[in-house]
Amino acid sequence: MMENGDLREIIENIRFFITEHNEINLKNMLVDTHPADIADIIVNLEEEESEYIFSLLPAEQASEVLAYLPDYSRAQIIEELEDERLAELVDEMDSDDATDLVSELPEEKAQKVLEVIDFQDSREVKELLRHEEDTAGGIMAMELIGVNENSTVDEAIEQVRKRAEEVEEVYYIFVVNDQQKLVGIVSIKKLILSSGKTRISAIMERDVISVTTDMDQEEVARIVKKYDLVAVPVVDEQGRLVGRITVDDVMDVVDDEASEDIHRLAGITEEVEIHETSTLKISRVRLPWLLFAFFGEIGSAAVMSYFEASLKQILTAAFFIPIIMAMGGNAGIQSSTIMVRGLALGDIGLLHAKKQIFKEFKVSIINGLICGLLLFLIIGLLFSKLEHPFRFSAVIGIAMFFIIINATIVGAIIPLFLKRINVDPAIATGPFITTSNDIIGLLIYLGLASIYLVYFA
Amino acid sequence: MMENGDLREIIENIRFFITEHNEINLKNMLVDTHPADIADIIVNLEEEESEYIFSLLPAEQASEVLAYLPDYSRAQIIEELEDERLAELVDEMDSDDATDLVSELPEEKAQKVLEVIDFQDSREVKELLRHEEDTAGGIMAMELIGVNENSTVDEAIEQVRKRAEEVEEVYYIFVVNDQQKLVGIVSIKKLILSSGKTRISAIMERDVISVTTDMDQEEVARIVKKYDLVAVPVVDEQGRLVGRITVDDVMDVVDDEASEDIHRLAGITEEVEIHETSTLKISRVRLPWLLFAFFGEIGSAAVMSYFEASLKQILTAAFFIPIIMAMGGNAGIQSSTIMVRGLALGDIGLLHAKKQIFKEFKVSIINGLICGLLLFLIIGLLFSKLEHPFRFSAVIGIAMFFIIINATIVGAIIPLFLKRINVDPAIATGPFITTSNDIIGLLIYLGLASIYLVYFA
Repeated sequence: MMENGDLREIIENIRFFITEHNEINLKNMLVDTHPADIADIIVNLEEEESEYIFSLLPAEQASEVLAYLPDYSRAQIIEELEDERLAELVDEMDSDDATDLVSELPEEKAQKVLEVIDFQDSREVKELLRHEEDTAGGIMAMELIGVNENSTVDEAIEQVRKRAEEVEEVYYIFVVNDQQKLVGIVSIKKLILSSGKTRISAIMERDVISVTTDMDQEEVARIVKKYDLVAVPVVDEQGRLVGRITVDDVMDVVDDEASEDIHRLAGITEEVEIHETSTLKISRVRLPWLLFAFFGEIGSAAVMSYFEASLKQILTAAFFIPIIMAMGGNAGIQSSTIMVRGLALGDIGLLHAKKQIFKEFKVSIINGLICGLLLFLIIGLLFSKLEHPFRFSAVIGIAMFFIIINATIVGAIIPLFLKRINVDPAIATGPFITTSNDIIGLLIYLGLASIYLVYFA
Repeated sequence: MMENGDLREIIENIRFFITEHNEINLKNMLVDTHPADIADIIVNLEEEESEYIFSLLPAEQASEVLAYLPDYSRAQIIEELEDERLAELVDEMDSDDATDLVSELPEEKAQKVLEVIDFQDSREVKELLRHEEDTAGGIMAMELIGVNENSTVDEAIEQVRKRAEEVEEVYYIFVVNDQQKLVGIVSIKKLILSSGKTRISAIMERDVISVTTDMDQEEVARIVKKYDLVAVPVVDEQGRLVGRITVDDVMDVVDDEASEDIHRLAGITEEVEIHETSTLKISRVRLPWLLFAFFGEIGSAAVMSYFEASLKQILTAAFFIPIIMAMGGNAGIQSSTIMVRGLALGDIGLLHAKKQIFKEFKVSIINGLICGLLLFLIIGLLFSKLEHPFRFSAVIGIAMFFIIINATIVGAIIPLFLKRINVDPAIATGPFITTSNDIIGLLIYLGLASIYLVYFA
């Protein structure tokens, strides 16, 4: 294992050996390095350097490194590989990694690779390519140990032995009936503790937790997390065993889904590879919500122009528009973020929605009171040259109070509403809430200021 | 396994049986239900109902349900339990879950439970309580199979058999030398495929990936994810094997860390239980950044008051303060969120920081141009009653262009800077960036507007 701090040093050494063309030392360094660490190193090298390092790896290690590389870096590497070497690497891979890789290749190159690799592998990859990328079928692997319920423990162990090379990680063996339907599961620990002649059906767990090929990967992750699974079998519509998903792939899904939520909250609703190099592509992904906010805030300008007369009369009121907007924005982001994340993890359910909203209401009263009071005092003291400084500042303080309450409640209700109509709460929450809170906030603030002018000024 | 949609129906049935006091039907329903599902049911019942349901469960099932319950719900349940029943449940638990539970009890109750439970369990819990909650020692369990390197495969299997009840999930056995130092690891699969007389040292993997008791749980999660582990051994400062962490516990850490980042981005820097009932506590956690923004925006008011003369001359300029602020805010949140998440997952490294900032710069030019141009056209057309509508709108459009560039770059640089000085980028990013962008944005905008007034109006 490589310590986090070692990376810089290792990379310096590697660069030194590269400039020296010291292939022997490089190979010696790499031979005992974990493929995950080699992937880390490659990501941090310049393109030419990483291609050179990759070319020094024997096929088995190289194929593992490819599986650990992030998409953008893998794409760089495979672009430069000869078809023959590529096929050799795909042959070494598990079916799920091989499928990922083939799906990233240009049509023509993919065809070539599929023609050259082992027939069984090629059939598996073609089979897996049929599934949507973000479903259970899209992330499953076909390497698994499946035995008939009538076989014995010895026969099952024999299966494990026969396929030991191909199926590297075995924690469970899956049990099927004569129709290939999944009927049970046996942990490898149970296998080791049972006598050789025992029938599998006698020791298997019958209440198997499984997923179907078309299930969304997010739902798969929810199930694996909920039941603390290490691997979950995948079945087709007829209940036949077709694959398995291991927890490390689920972990990637969990990270991806969290990233998706975080990005959506920031108004980036379409995913783009973090190392995307096309500026136009990145800008296009960020523009939609920027433009949404843009036209929303044109609404804000309209609101202000509607109150032009009041603003002319008391320009000082305009000075506090930024603070009014910012505080509403921040309070709304706080409550909406709590809701979006709680809903995503299942910590907040729709069953208790009213209770949650009421809680947010109580919190907003306290925070609104504190901020409103502070603003009342500060403005009253700072703008003492006005005729009635504390009368004026009272209006602004009251506006602050209502705006924080409004923003907090809007922030809490919109995600719950979106969840109820089956829209991802993260997707429309960030800029949408900020923009609508800006407009409502300005209406409250300038409305109160105008009333003040009419009656008290 | 319970389907997601079934929950509502099951809860209705359970409620019906509860009102009918139909204990037999309830017990029958529960006996075959997975503890994770029972936990789901309990979370969705009223407090009294869930305590009643929990009281019907046999000790082993009840202890598993407790481990699956979220903190707030577990706290509710154990508050009502007799000391004796509590001790019985703790006895049934794995050491990590038992420690979690005992650490949540009031001092006195915890003491009582520790006195009553099995001596070995009590020693383990006391040992585990010594570690910080968010370190490897704080989340590890002591149930593991460790064998001496000189033992044989048969002896190792005998170990697994002897402790089968206590150590439920076994995927690896850990190998120690005579000084109890961790020297290797053997998968159960390898064990099953090796002949009984083989020495463990001959088949073990010597390059073990392990973590130390004081390692931060986030770092543990990073390692488990990076190397695709199912369980990782924990060693003390002397390298002696003291525990293990399984992937399901790491999965919880991954979720927690993502939540922490998401909340921090929203200006909630201290964690509070999502089902916290004290309004004061929730409000206190949200106040710091609200107040930070508050005083920052008092700065905005100062900036505006500095430009009072210009604003008096051309009040229309004030109408576009919301759009200027909002667009800067959104652009800054987009770039900072990408950075914060990329840094958290390791997708963005400090080594390539300059490249990332330059990319953000290019993106901001495009988006700034589009938004600036749009604003130029819209204002020019809408405010045609001004003397030089397009001259005025050009100034505002140019301000928009620079403000989007500034906000994007600030949003990208601050997280990278925080990471470099070893501060969590998420913690100071959200409200900090928004607030500083507001002030800089106003300076740019009102500065340009004043120049326009002096030279062109």
